[in-house]
Amino acid sequence: MSRLTVWAPDGVPEVRPGDDLGALLGEALATGHPDGPPVDGDVLVVTSKVVSKAEGRVVAAADREAAITAETVRVVASREHPGGVTRIVENRLGLVMAAAGVDASNTPEGTVLLLPLDPDASARALRRSLEARFGARLGVLVSDTAGRPWRHGQTDLAIGAAGVRVLEDLRGGVDTHGRPLAVTMAAVADELAAAAELTKGKTAGRPVAVVRGSGHVTPEDGPGARALVRLGPEDMFAQGSAEAYAAGWAAALASLGQVPPS
Amino acid sequence: MSRLTVWAPDGVPEVRPGDDLGALLGEALATGHPDGPPVDGDVLVVTSKVVSKAEGRVVAAADREAAITAETVRVVASREHPGGVTRIVENRLGLVMAAAGVDASNTPEGTVLLLPLDPDASARALRRSLEARFGARLGVLVSDTAGRPWRHGQTDLAIGAAGVRVLEDLRGGVDTHGRPLAVTMAAVADELAAAAELTKGKTAGRPVAVVRGSGHVTPEDGPGARALVRLGPEDMFAQGSAEAYAAGWAAALASLGQVPPS
Repeated sequence: MSRLTVWAPDGVPEVRPGDDLGALLGEALATGHPDGPPVDGDVLVVTSKVVSKAEGRVVAAADREAAITAETVRVVASREHPGGVTRIVENRLGLVMAAAGVDASNTPEGTVLLLPLDPDASARALRRSLEARFGARLGVLVSDTAGRPWRHGQTDLAIGAAGVRVLEDLRGGVDTHGRPLAVTMAAVADELAAAAELTKGKTAGRPVAVVRGSGHVTPEDGPGARALVRLGPEDMFAQGSAEAYAAGWAAALASLGQVPPS
Repeated sequence: MSRLTVWAPDGVPEVRPGDDLGALLGEALATGHPDGPPVDGDVLVVTSKVVSKAEGRVVAAADREAAITAETVRVVASREHPGGVTRIVENRLGLVMAAAGVDASNTPEGTVLLLPLDPDASARALRRSLEARFGARLGVLVSDTAGRPWRHGQTDLAIGAAGVRVLEDLRGGVDTHGRPLAVTMAAVADELAAAAELTKGKTAGRPVAVVRGSGHVTPEDGPGARALVRLGPEDMFAQGSAEAYAAGWAAALASLGQVPPS
């Protein structure tokens, strides 16, 4: 519980459509690191880009805008800037991200990458593969990078999970004074993804990290990272401020018969 | 760069107003952990609660609502629920948090804790104290716990910093294909705080963690965690959706002379 080790091995080759990602990652994890290969209780955090590549989730860059539209459930907010328009959208995975998570970096020229079709399923498949290789009970997270309201900079979070307690439910817990905890759920999977990012980096060709010592690996695959998504009635930020303001304005006018609702 | 160790020592006593927090943390960090005392390059992540306690930022629980109001710059969103009203507010530190960060857990009965008056200054003072004790160049983060839009669960983030590269600026960088990076700034301090939380936990009386190996300690104190705050024109979520919708509705009516603006 009180000591973690996190490392990201070198040696994962460029991943191509149809590659056996579990085998490629397993090879890099098996060799050449002083902490040795994965053991019971380790969480493997895999960058979504290599999952997308192995699964062939690559489209031509010319189709980028169409790809974003296809991945979008609804636009949450958009903002024009000198370089174009930033669209913050909810994608089909329930993730609220710029450009729906469609990415034009770390892919060959002329292509963009979509997020994996079902990152929880990808995590489960990688778990099967890597548990078999190492004969150990492992957790697997698929991570991606996103911005946050009110904070500069991006952090990594978990978009796929298998065998990891994604949320630690502290409801009903008490603090050292015996008083109810104000914090009720720790987003463990997102914190594990953030810790892993510190060792994987963005440019170094290290798409997998091992987190040892978290105590959050579970026998069952569990609900996946989908359990981290909070949308619907609980979501106080379903629309950007400007979009919601405009919607309120239009609705007021419509209520008076001034203009049709937009 | 590619290997982190994170641990949280036991042995920090209950902190009381006026305590020398650097001395108390230093004592726990000096003794009894197999990884030894802090060395050059380590980041020490300190839970804001113990900083607040040492600084006497304790008020009577009866004054909780008044304390929240005093800490609030503006209300971002509020929502009624069976237990009362949740107010998401921007506080005087530029942090957008439920209840302005005023906390009723991990404090003696009958009291609530305010956030430190100036967490960046607190981090600088702790850095001075702990660098002197250990004769090493250290970074210090003050961490707190917050919820996020669109995600279940809370994560820890950095609200104070000294000697830590809080943002890693990747603008102008290229990926392994030589293409510009889509991610432009990594919120390193928030990722370090998240990694630390995995070892400190919420209930175990471990208010400080050591992160070894990040490569993000800087000679200068730097801009502090204030540099992570993104508000103003760049902020697309300055108001909750319901609040912005209501404001748009009221403004439209006011524009027609129907009712005064609310």
